Amino acid sequence: MLIRPATRADDGAIAPILLPVVRAGETYALERDLSERDALAFWHSPGHSVFVAEVAGEVLGSYFLRANKRGGGSHVANCGYIVAGHATGRGIARAMAQHSFDRARAAGFRAMQFNFVIATNRRAVALWLGLGFEQVGRLPGAFDHPALGEVDALVLYRRL
Amino acid sequence: MLIRPATRADDGAIAPILLPVVRAGETYALERDLSERDALAFWHSPGHSVFVAEVAGEVLGSYFLRANKRGGGSHVANCGYIVAGHATGRGIARAMAQHSFDRARAAGFRAMQFNFVIATNRRAVALWLGLGFEQVGRLPGAFDHPALGEVDALVLYRRL
Repeated sequence: MLIRPATRADDGAIAPILLPVVRAGETYALERDLSERDALAFWHSPGHSVFVAEVAGEVLGSYFLRANKRGGGSHVANCGYIVAGHATGRGIARAMAQHSFDRARAAGFRAMQFNFVIATNRRAVALWLGLGFEQVGRLPGAFDHPALGEVDALVLYRRL
Repeated sequence: MLIRPATRADDGAIAPILLPVVRAGETYALERDLSERDALAFWHSPGHSVFVAEVAGEVLGSYFLRANKRGGGSHVANCGYIVAGHATGRGIARAMAQHSFDRARAAGFRAMQFNFVIATNRRAVALWLGLGFEQVGRLPGAFDHPALGEVDALVLYRRL
């Protein structure tokens, strides 16, 4: 697996991974009807460093790394990760996570925070807890899940 | 006290309240050397509804109201409040808070979340807990305080 910085030339490979995640609306707090253009604009937001994970030349995942806050909060990183639906269970998210920890450390970040992990996204929660994240907050009913209604979101935190 | 929507004509009154808060760097996660223009641009960010509190025609406080998250998180509001240094202890923050709850409810928000209340800001923490907020998270060392170094930030949540 090769994990490398993305360019806008990768958008054609990122979009078919990102769009189903947006349309499902079960894991990211984004409008489900976001256009492809706006979804990619979010992924490449100012301040985001975007990476892709490829296997045998095929992009199967992507993540962004950014400062979670400005000023006095800028020593804490934040990331978002997506994996192609047909490529789950192959360790791609885990590999991107490890890569993001290294990149974040190299950029001088001292911790990483996930602000809004949907509690029903059990696969993700288990992965992050297994990778050393601590649950430092639980936001009651903060996410309106398309099938389940209001569910909790978790705040996860990890020293780097 | 009159609390009313702000216009850009209020910037001249908001700036002398906002700038000292930014320069102190003890309560907001913003660059301490932010220009007046950029500080006001932050206060009036897209999606922010900005209000001012005035007493006898003098603006003594301001707050913004926005959706805390997009998509499935857009039923939760977020606010930021500032009070002029010479006007603290006069109930202005409390009055703006009550006003913001009403405005948020009227706009259809079902809860309000403060993402990053600096734990050393005891006056603010006491005010919010007294107004029905619950501490739902504690972010260890997530704020680099200019005098105290890494201090915790709190996540507060309140149903509306």
